[in-house]
Amino acid sequence: MSDKILVFGHQKPDTDAIGSSMSFSYLSNHRKHVKLNTEVVALGPANEETQFALDTFGLELPRIVKSAKEEGVDTVILTDHNEFQQSISDIEDVTIMGVVDHHRVANFQTAMPLFMTVEPVGSASSIVYRKFLEEGVEIPKALAGMMLSGLISDTLLLKSPTTHPTDFHVAEELAKIAGVNLEEYGLAMLKAGTNLASKTAEELIDIDAKTFELNGKKVRVAQVNTVDIPEVLARLDEIKAAVNAYMTAGGFDDFVFMITDIVNSNSEILALGYDMDKVEAAFNFKLENDHAFLAGAVSRKKQVVPQLTESFNV
Amino acid sequence: MSDKILVFGHQKPDTDAIGSSMSFSYLSNHRKHVKLNTEVVALGPANEETQFALDTFGLELPRIVKSAKEEGVDTVILTDHNEFQQSISDIEDVTIMGVVDHHRVANFQTAMPLFMTVEPVGSASSIVYRKFLEEGVEIPKALAGMMLSGLISDTLLLKSPTTHPTDFHVAEELAKIAGVNLEEYGLAMLKAGTNLASKTAEELIDIDAKTFELNGKKVRVAQVNTVDIPEVLARLDEIKAAVNAYMTAGGFDDFVFMITDIVNSNSEILALGYDMDKVEAAFNFKLENDHAFLAGAVSRKKQVVPQLTESFNV
Repeated sequence: MSDKILVFGHQKPDTDAIGSSMSFSYLSNHRKHVKLNTEVVALGPANEETQFALDTFGLELPRIVKSAKEEGVDTVILTDHNEFQQSISDIEDVTIMGVVDHHRVANFQTAMPLFMTVEPVGSASSIVYRKFLEEGVEIPKALAGMMLSGLISDTLLLKSPTTHPTDFHVAEELAKIAGVNLEEYGLAMLKAGTNLASKTAEELIDIDAKTFELNGKKVRVAQVNTVDIPEVLARLDEIKAAVNAYMTAGGFDDFVFMITDIVNSNSEILALGYDMDKVEAAFNFKLENDHAFLAGAVSRKKQVVPQLTESFNV
Repeated sequence: MSDKILVFGHQKPDTDAIGSSMSFSYLSNHRKHVKLNTEVVALGPANEETQFALDTFGLELPRIVKSAKEEGVDTVILTDHNEFQQSISDIEDVTIMGVVDHHRVANFQTAMPLFMTVEPVGSASSIVYRKFLEEGVEIPKALAGMMLSGLISDTLLLKSPTTHPTDFHVAEELAKIAGVNLEEYGLAMLKAGTNLASKTAEELIDIDAKTFELNGKKVRVAQVNTVDIPEVLARLDEIKAAVNAYMTAGGFDDFVFMITDIVNSNSEILALGYDMDKVEAAFNFKLENDHAFLAGAVSRKKQVVPQLTESFNV
């Protein structure tokens, strides 16, 4: 085993997973006291949004690895996640030296004390940005760009209710260092992740999807970002067929699909399954042809899942 | 439910549990942005060492509570622990807003993102001290004394191998603010916790004891601090009788009792049970009349349990 430490974000990496891990690895290797020997790696390929950010700032995706032990490494640092099922395949066989995250803590444990910073802010990148300040390490321009991209991605340009009051200032500062206009760059980056035309309906409903147990029902809640909801709705029949096939194959009771307009911060909700009364009650709307408009909704975590949970529990 | 937030250390509180929780509650209520409405409470009475620290700095033990819900509170902040079995009785029914700790993370999970800072340093108080600096809040003299006491207690005056390189500076700074001489006060405080003459043998072997499963064997490892090992060894027959009765009642295979000299940083090891060959091999010594001297050993976590674990696994 080498003394090298791997730093990585979660499986199926998004822009915050990549941006926070690249930046935290750099910081760990350049801090003034107790420099570490870390390498940033990724647990999967970049999505189109992340690739746009990497291209803009002249960086390459870290190399993709499947296992720490196969790399001859037994110590790791996690960013943007802590739950073991979202981490590297052999996470239970290695020493976790550190965690920087902004999610709930669950399915996580260590044998020894570690460095762990969790804050309920908009992105893991926001926390890494503050760590640069605390350590007094200058932020390279390209990494400022990647951290900014992670924050923009997770908060849909600071419009999601997951945005923390401190994130606005963080975004401004990072945009300054990165040398980009926050609004212009942010919208361009988000749009790069909304190239839905090239995707099959099966791919669309699985880009970003999570399963929830709601009062004994197995419910899938998926989300895609777009700048053109009508373009997605034009494929409604195709998408409904894909959803129905997916539900049958996976034994789901219900499927809720958020088609989110990132420019105007609204969503169209497509819903299919056995509990449409619960879905309609959750959002106080009427589904027509299996879909309905939900004004102001952009966050699955804050604006959809809690409402469904409450409605299913009535 | 009120909007009050309870802050507390672990059950059977030690000086770091009390010192870190009192100080972090104060900091939370006095920070410059987003002041909280917290109350520090304790999950049990003070031990003699902690009482000495409280008396020295003119403070009283926080009131003792058993349940958050009974207090009309549904949000809590934990210091010096994270494992649920060490926490308040209804920890699974409340929202955990924050954690400040220096232990491994295990048996812990939340439903939502939170503030969590874990660092592998000598005491939770060391972390709280740094948070005062980060937040730019002046440390009251008495709370500096309590944080210093927590650090001294957990590291046996900075001599335990659990002491972090940064802890020496933290101790100096806190001693300055508290207006005490580090060595003199530290030794006096540790001695206050070593009043063993007043305790029965049954109490002695249970002051600070943990159970470990070592290769299928059930092993109890207990520790007491003293300034006079011969005084404890004078009660050897009485202690052995108590240990044997304890092992029989609890179905233990082995009992390892560290009698630690806090002035000279050594331990006498008393060991009884079925696996004395393993215990002797672990420490490369010969038990005579069931005990032996272990030079330099003060930390159960770093200098006794790992060695036993390795020896039992051969």
